[in-house]
Amino acid sequence: MERIFATYLIETPLAVEKAAAALAGEQSSGTFVAVPGETEELKQRFAARVEKITPLETVTEPGLPGFRSPGGKFQRAEIVVSWPVENMGWNLPVLVSTIQGNLYELAQFSGLKLMDVELPPSFAGHFRGPKFGIAGCRRLTQVENRPLIGTIIKPSIGLTTQQTAALVKTLAEAGIDFIKDDELMGNPPHSPFDERVDSVMHVLNAHADRTGKKVMYAFNISDELDAMQRHYEKVVQSGGTSAMISLNSVGFAGAKKICDLGALAIHGHRNGWGMLNRHPLLGIEFPAYQKLWRLAGVDQIHVNGIANKFWESDDSVVRSIAACLQPLFDLSGAPGAAPARLQNHAQLAGAVPGAPILPVVSSGQWGGQACETFRRTQTTDLLYMAGGGIMAHPHGPAAGVRSLQKWWAAAVEGLTLEQAAQKYPELKKSVEKFGKQGG
Amino acid sequence: MERIFATYLIETPLAVEKAAAALAGEQSSGTFVAVPGETEELKQRFAARVEKITPLETVTEPGLPGFRSPGGKFQRAEIVVSWPVENMGWNLPVLVSTIQGNLYELAQFSGLKLMDVELPPSFAGHFRGPKFGIAGCRRLTQVENRPLIGTIIKPSIGLTTQQTAALVKTLAEAGIDFIKDDELMGNPPHSPFDERVDSVMHVLNAHADRTGKKVMYAFNISDELDAMQRHYEKVVQSGGTSAMISLNSVGFAGAKKICDLGALAIHGHRNGWGMLNRHPLLGIEFPAYQKLWRLAGVDQIHVNGIANKFWESDDSVVRSIAACLQPLFDLSGAPGAAPARLQNHAQLAGAVPGAPILPVVSSGQWGGQACETFRRTQTTDLLYMAGGGIMAHPHGPAAGVRSLQKWWAAAVEGLTLEQAAQKYPELKKSVEKFGKQGG
Repeated sequence: MERIFATYLIETPLAVEKAAAALAGEQSSGTFVAVPGETEELKQRFAARVEKITPLETVTEPGLPGFRSPGGKFQRAEIVVSWPVENMGWNLPVLVSTIQGNLYELAQFSGLKLMDVELPPSFAGHFRGPKFGIAGCRRLTQVENRPLIGTIIKPSIGLTTQQTAALVKTLAEAGIDFIKDDELMGNPPHSPFDERVDSVMHVLNAHADRTGKKVMYAFNISDELDAMQRHYEKVVQSGGTSAMISLNSVGFAGAKKICDLGALAIHGHRNGWGMLNRHPLLGIEFPAYQKLWRLAGVDQIHVNGIANKFWESDDSVVRSIAACLQPLFDLSGAPGAAPARLQNHAQLAGAVPGAPILPVVSSGQWGGQACETFRRTQTTDLLYMAGGGIMAHPHGPAAGVRSLQKWWAAAVEGLTLEQAAQKYPELKKSVEKFGKQGG
Repeated sequence: MERIFATYLIETPLAVEKAAAALAGEQSSGTFVAVPGETEELKQRFAARVEKITPLETVTEPGLPGFRSPGGKFQRAEIVVSWPVENMGWNLPVLVSTIQGNLYELAQFSGLKLMDVELPPSFAGHFRGPKFGIAGCRRLTQVENRPLIGTIIKPSIGLTTQQTAALVKTLAEAGIDFIKDDELMGNPPHSPFDERVDSVMHVLNAHADRTGKKVMYAFNISDELDAMQRHYEKVVQSGGTSAMISLNSVGFAGAKKICDLGALAIHGHRNGWGMLNRHPLLGIEFPAYQKLWRLAGVDQIHVNGIANKFWESDDSVVRSIAACLQPLFDLSGAPGAAPARLQNHAQLAGAVPGAPILPVVSSGQWGGQACETFRRTQTTDLLYMAGGGIMAHPHGPAAGVRSLQKWWAAAVEGLTLEQAAQKYPELKKSVEKFGKQGG
């Protein structure tokens, strides 16, 4: 029987083995008093198993405040727990409830974080994963050998549909590949969704007729389900290529339903993520998170950016980008064997299930971070988003887009920010304008 | 223009005013470089406003680890931020992204928790709230003047549909009001959903024919959306009265779609909640959380229980129960005025939008906690769940159910656990059997 493996970082005032066993019990056949029907045979077949315990450091202050330890010590460890696929079948919400459900309630833990999950090959038969992914998004935008360059309509809210369309015209003519609504912009009275699609696609279709290039616009369809489906259809009918969903606000069932429609590349916004991740000993790490959304079929997902304006470290961003580029399933060997290995993801895009998901680099990006981003990730398979860096460029938005492309060319050349600024006068100016705010 | 008010507990190394302004900016018209179109008029109309700042204590260690403060101090405060309804319209996922989205990413905060949200009267015109709620669930189960008594099928997973039905028969004959699937039990190969409904409803329909009492069974329909709708329809067709959703795993869009179908009382399981709430300075508090799910239309929601087996304090459980019984909307006065006042919720149940949601008390409950639960909440408007406390009762499940009813009668009499055990011999035995584990 195939098994699902989940890796947790834990902290406990108890013996690690005892705490791990409590987790496995709570998340499979456990109850606080033995009940009839809880036979040995049933437990053998359905019980979650603690597969591995790797003790880490001991600390004297608990990760989550308010805990007491009789011995004054808290033990940290990495543990691997497994479940038979038979427990949940191929059901995404029940998978989520199994690996990140009630276990966070257990008093045995003063810290608990889901680090990664490993899904057996049979999942590839039930979950297609991203329909478009990296290869599909490149095809739709006709961008090769460099990141897709994108931006967000700002101000986030308040623009009329005509003002939005005027901005889109400017950006399209500037040579942008991708534009998106802000996550705060859904279907408000001052910018009704259908009217916004009409205005924006009028511009982008005309631009495509003239130039042959269809700019990808991710319309924020996040809403109740019927409205999302109506809005999705409106985008398809209007010649659009993408829709955006706020993943945490819409949820797995709604997101999967939308992704399954299969006609648009789905841009996954992770707003609310800080709440799930920001404490080092609570919640979920991005490698596990992006796998769950890839199962839902999301094509693009936010990973923050190097030297971002938020709290996240560069190391964490680099790990997130790497996670997106790994295959979702290990289809190479025995069921439930080793963690998925890094493969050439080009071969995975398209027909093979579990294709890589396009990492969306954003938050305070102005171009100068390209050098460090490439140095650390060695990939251009990115959607690179800049806001003010384009619209507030001293020589206008077209110069802003050219500047971003130039930064990426310099990054792929292997130059550092300083070397790039020294070699290319326009990048020097870019540093002078944006270097302080972005750095 | 109506406004939405959200209350946050924050901690910041900066001046509180500055941090609060950053939150308001990020969640409305902010961008890190001023862009064209960000006019004063637009900002006036759409900007989020900091309405109130109440400074709390100063601390020297940050709530979320890894933060530095130049002055070595971190200031805590409660702040109220408001948004015009015009920003998001009546769109639940966009509301969620607005009040609990990117703000958790802001480096300005070493702690941030959404404590409550106040929704203006126009929301009552767009969101019905619970279709059944407390009054509807009482009507369906024919239970008056005491809590609904319920239990969970255990072991959580592994039972065949025949074994499940046999257990249901025992419980129905024991006089139970409510039974539910475990959240780990969805539609696995060893207990296919349709077959489980057939087996269980065969028992419960026959029992209803005999006794006139239809036991409510919350079948866990959590799954992808099409499957949820199929399973919902199956329950309706089979004469069932309830379905269960794992709220965090299904998400707002899927849950709202299911609740809107309106034929079944929806049991909302909050597994995963610990991840959103367990740190005192991160995530969301239950008063805000239950309001969002009530907007989706959920009829019953888990609140943990007094002296539970998990980490949560009794105080927190008491606050959660009180929150469920408050009206969702303040329809009494001026738009966006004072927080909703406690009203007689009986008058709200049914036709009025925003009816109270039935609090589901569970986790290690065996009956003895009834006294303290009633003393502190003064309500019997509860679904009181006991697992082992019923099935493992020394005189069998019927005695277990009777014992729970007796405990509640004693609680309403005003007795403490000790007084109840002294007065009623069967409760004394209950304490002897379960008192240690439950307490």
